[in-house]
Amino acid sequence: MIVVLKRGASEATIQKIARRVEELGLKAHVIVGTERTVIAAVGDKRNGEQEALESCEDVEKVVPILAPYKVASLEAKPEPTIIRVLDFVAGGGNVGIMAGPCSVESEEQILESARRVKAAGATALRGGAFKPRTSPYSFQGMKEEGLKLLAAAREETGLAVVTEVMAPDQVEMVAKYADILQIGARNMQNYNLLQAVGETRKAVLLKRGAAATMEEFLLAAEYILDMGNSQVMLCERGIRTFETHTRFTLPLASVAYLHQKTHLPVIIDPSHGTGYASLVPPMCAAAVAAGADGLIVEVHPDPPNAMSDGAQSLTPEAFAAAMATTRKVAEALGRTLH
Amino acid sequence: MIVVLKRGASEATIQKIARRVEELGLKAHVIVGTERTVIAAVGDKRNGEQEALESCEDVEKVVPILAPYKVASLEAKPEPTIIRVLDFVAGGGNVGIMAGPCSVESEEQILESARRVKAAGATALRGGAFKPRTSPYSFQGMKEEGLKLLAAAREETGLAVVTEVMAPDQVEMVAKYADILQIGARNMQNYNLLQAVGETRKAVLLKRGAAATMEEFLLAAEYILDMGNSQVMLCERGIRTFETHTRFTLPLASVAYLHQKTHLPVIIDPSHGTGYASLVPPMCAAAVAAGADGLIVEVHPDPPNAMSDGAQSLTPEAFAAAMATTRKVAEALGRTLH
Amino acid sequence: MIVVLKRGASEATIQKIARRVEELGLKAHVIVGTERTVIAAVGDKRNGEQEALESCEDVEKVVPILAPYKVASLEAKPEPTIIRVLDFVAGGGNVGIMAGPCSVESEEQILESARRVKAAGATALRGGAFKPRTSPYSFQGMKEEGLKLLAAAREETGLAVVTEVMAPDQVEMVAKYADILQIGARNMQNYNLLQAVGETRKAVLLKRGAAATMEEFLLAAEYILDMGNSQVMLCERGIRTFETHTRFTLPLASVAYLHQKTHLPVIIDPSHGTGYASLVPPMCAAAVAAGADGLIVEVHPDPPNAMSDGAQSLTPEAFAAAMATTRKVAEALGRTLH
Amino acid sequence: MIVVLKRGASEATIQKIARRVEELGLKAHVIVGTERTVIAAVGDKRNGEQEALESCEDVEKVVPILAPYKVASLEAKPEPTIIRVLDFVAGGGNVGIMAGPCSVESEEQILESARRVKAAGATALRGGAFKPRTSPYSFQGMKEEGLKLLAAAREETGLAVVTEVMAPDQVEMVAKYADILQIGARNMQNYNLLQAVGETRKAVLLKRGAAATMEEFLLAAEYILDMGNSQVMLCERGIRTFETHTRFTLPLASVAYLHQKTHLPVIIDPSHGTGYASLVPPMCAAAVAAGADGLIVEVHPDPPNAMSDGAQSLTPEAFAAAMATTRKVAEALGRTLH
Repeated sequence: MIVVLKRGASEATIQKIARRVEELGLKAHVIVGTERTVIAAVGDKRNGEQEALESCEDVEKVVPILAPYKVASLEAKPEPTIIRVLDFVAGGGNVGIMAGPCSVESEEQILESARRVKAAGATALRGGAFKPRTSPYSFQGMKEEGLKLLAAAREETGLAVVTEVMAPDQVEMVAKYADILQIGARNMQNYNLLQAVGETRKAVLLKRGAAATMEEFLLAAEYILDMGNSQVMLCERGIRTFETHTRFTLPLASVAYLHQKTHLPVIIDPSHGTGYASLVPPMCAAAVAAGADGLIVEVHPDPPNAMSDGAQSLTPEAFAAAMATTRKVAEALGRTLH
Repeated sequence: MIVVLKRGASEATIQKIARRVEELGLKAHVIVGTERTVIAAVGDKRNGEQEALESCEDVEKVVPILAPYKVASLEAKPEPTIIRVLDFVAGGGNVGIMAGPCSVESEEQILESARRVKAAGATALRGGAFKPRTSPYSFQGMKEEGLKLLAAAREETGLAVVTEVMAPDQVEMVAKYADILQIGARNMQNYNLLQAVGETRKAVLLKRGAAATMEEFLLAAEYILDMGNSQVMLCERGIRTFETHTRFTLPLASVAYLHQKTHLPVIIDPSHGTGYASLVPPMCAAAVAAGADGLIVEVHPDPPNAMSDGAQSLTPEAFAAAMATTRKVAEALGRTLH
Repeated sequence: MIVVLKRGASEATIQKIARRVEELGLKAHVIVGTERTVIAAVGDKRNGEQEALESCEDVEKVVPILAPYKVASLEAKPEPTIIRVLDFVAGGGNVGIMAGPCSVESEEQILESARRVKAAGATALRGGAFKPRTSPYSFQGMKEEGLKLLAAAREETGLAVVTEVMAPDQVEMVAKYADILQIGARNMQNYNLLQAVGETRKAVLLKRGAAATMEEFLLAAEYILDMGNSQVMLCERGIRTFETHTRFTLPLASVAYLHQKTHLPVIIDPSHGTGYASLVPPMCAAAVAAGADGLIVEVHPDPPNAMSDGAQSLTPEAFAAAMATTRKVAEALGRTLH
Repeated sequence: MIVVLKRGASEATIQKIARRVEELGLKAHVIVGTERTVIAAVGDKRNGEQEALESCEDVEKVVPILAPYKVASLEAKPEPTIIRVLDFVAGGGNVGIMAGPCSVESEEQILESARRVKAAGATALRGGAFKPRTSPYSFQGMKEEGLKLLAAAREETGLAVVTEVMAPDQVEMVAKYADILQIGARNMQNYNLLQAVGETRKAVLLKRGAAATMEEFLLAAEYILDMGNSQVMLCERGIRTFETHTRFTLPLASVAYLHQKTHLPVIIDPSHGTGYASLVPPMCAAAVAAGADGLIVEVHPDPPNAMSDGAQSLTPEAFAAAMATTRKVAEALGRTLH
């Protein structure tokens, strides 16, 4: 950490803060500049030392040097993590495709979805059984009944099942049916939930919160990894900005940035990331060109009659076309779509 | 709702969408404009009709007219809700003051905090026992032991206790000790948690998520109200923007806006809203001038040794001075500080 | 426009507002809903009617239906505009590549840059002679001397020259040397400057302001088009969001969105859009996969000694590698790199 | 500056970067940490050294220590700057009130506005003659004719005149009629314009760009100050965020922050900052409670017939009421409204 002192901090203050640095278990190097004195605090500490120093008198700011996450970092594990679940593979040059409806609505709807997305090249089936809805008056999902239908779809098609879990006490039940546990964007910092999925050995798809920084995102992953579950995929699904022509703003530079910081695979969700079906196909191709290790795409056999997210759902035909284009891009770049 | 069709939508399409509107239980009025046709869909529906219509072919966009929340709205209850807990009062011209440390750290620390904030005019004591921390390596709170210390502080001082609850299965325990249950910003859309506090009859302090719109904020309150708990306070604690000179951006216009839409009291958190102790006092005064029904302020007897949030914590002396100034503003405006 | 009235607006008020709608030259359709009355105001007006109606008593909000831009819209001209300047071509399936240093620094530097970017496949040379710099103490550009060096580089290489113009009274001078006039992001709403370049018949590269909406962006283009200059390219260069791990957030969905609204070509600037050289190559490929009609990339023969923007400049070698990859993506999608 | 090297940077690299630091005229202190090496670069340099070092190989990031602005800083001038123009005074405990319509529309409108705002306590009259409008089809202002009407209103009322100047070549004409030159938010980084008003000796009201950081804002002021014009007021008018219930988000913490960094007075514009007349009065009071040195408020004798910004304009009656409340707050805090 670099502790920047206020202009005119006295020698006594400088010594006092240097002692505080040493008390915190760090080594203090005082550097007297032309206008400011700074103290470099050297050592491997990430447990609140920054906050402690920021509140000392005459400290202007404290600049951290080390990343606050450890297990997620590329420094801890330089080779990419590859997630394999049934035929789904993401990471290390493999592009895993998850697709399906926003919500499980009926046996017919989920089976039809599964068949169609499999035919277009998906290896995992998405579908919500527990639905976090902005309004208490909206459809809240079929719950365990929906999970059973997902499992039946896997039975028939062999697709891995990815579905959201919303609360710690649901983890056991969801894990019984699902192959990949999804943590939704609204729950990215629901730490009790992160710890609960961290206790399972199921693969986890962790969605970025709409206002989360990259550090917060990686620290959320760290909560899961720290419990011993190494099977984490990071999912960029768009951030909240001033833009209103899309539902969220989808920053594909996240892919390359995360690949420089972490070994975990990075999945892109162009459906939530844009909010409009017509924008999804070009963003599928762009995500893979940016280096994404996978995609999760909303596909519904009949979008106008979907119980949720119809506007951003592709028809099976549009999804098949998008995958054909995306596959061309992947192949041009020497990568494989799964 | 207003359904805006794409330019050149055919008569057949217009009729098809109008029928879909009627199927959804709404009345359709077709208005043919010079460049666009729009269909006004009239009726009291808030359960996904917008999404359904948005995914119809040749629909450009759907504009909702009615607010999606009901019980929280001023239309449902025109007189302000007043929250009274022990000596704490917020709403209807009463400005309730909650203050105390970020975390409960020890008996001495919390008792000292309680005495000092009471002396300065606070009627509720804040203090975290379960702490949502960005990093798994940071101090996570004293848990039930912390709750017991808070209750002891209430015993001695008569201050109402406000503390955060992080998970549905903690609600019972926290409610045993606390007077006001706080839902943190990260959990504003943790719907299972909202429902769990909605099942209690304890007052709830619901913090706005850092990227939540006003509609999402009011709908989160609606989850609690919908369970039968009417004792909800809305807390604006700052939003995430591009600004970095403050920890968050604190939009005080939220107060006046919310007063035009809802009967629930509006509390301001200038500590998280700015992130720096030196910015907190002017924002206390400004919040009250803007019409806030209460404040929640971080105060620590020894900020440089605080285990969390030291940089934004006021000393007891600074808090007393801030309250003296804020009281002058309240009185000039004919309102009362509690 | 749809005028939404406040709940409980009286019949007299409704009639008064309907009359105001008619006075403004629009036709009023009153629709009485279950909770709200709305008035549909039909007609082709875009000159302040919305603002006028918003300030009427008992109006809650006014929702525009028509886009406020005309000449830029796809409805006005369904076929894509193709910009051709020397060998540079953008639009209609052609991907034009502009590259070069942030600033012109010396004859040797700009000639070396020109040769290297041409060898890698660029058909236009970028380079700033008038530099808008955040600080008055930073290098402000070589001014006319820089323009002459750019012209010399065109002489030798045949590359089209794109360079920024910062003020209306510079337009004549810059147009004497440059082939494409760049309007920087800071000046996107400098209307006097937009009108001044609109009076020339030079191609214009209009950069999106860092906080501009799509409507504001297209209306800025409209200022130029409205003066009779149809040679406008829209450049997405990233928006300001809460993200700090990149300099700006680069939303590639802009490409697909703009292609649905306007006939103008869309160029991506991955250098400013990310701010870090290591993130630029994947975003070049992703931009083309998203459908971009061109790229503008900062390339410097010696980034650590660049007088501006070194951190986001590619070396010539890195640029050549990025173009090789990007070309593969373009070809896979049936498009041509120029 | 603190130069943070990448993990594993070799001794040779460290030495090379240290030499580069010294070449740039700074003194290098190498600090070898447990995981990272950092180099503290000591000296008073603000001319691009950061960018130069960021582009060196194996540099992870460069953290500046000194603020990039000088003349604007409180360190350069610890006592507050007070702006006095006719009866208008802002700064040093004086709260200056500017009010009037968005645009000058007619002699009657501007004279009526001037009389009414003066009666309510304003000492300066705002009114636009050159109007930066998002759409080329909107009313663009009365231009010189409008300036003459403003001067006539000053003649009659004694109010100082504040009006916007949009281009360098308009400065001379506008300065002939106006007392205070306004730089609009869209032009905050129009450096040629900043330099042109810097060459006058008129007071300048510099509006913050909707996406400008505090550093960029102060550096824009620095452009004016650097030309020798010391009469600069900073105007916070709201920033662009994800919020849509207000036109912009008005961060009042800017006031206290700026007072800690600069001697220049800080003015608040609650009209643009909120966009709705009903939100303006509470934000007037809140701004003064937050420590603002002045307000600029849109007031129109007949908002529904205003040619621009009607929805955010107060009626003269509402303005008088807002000023009465705001005056109470100012007096409670020992400050004076002008």
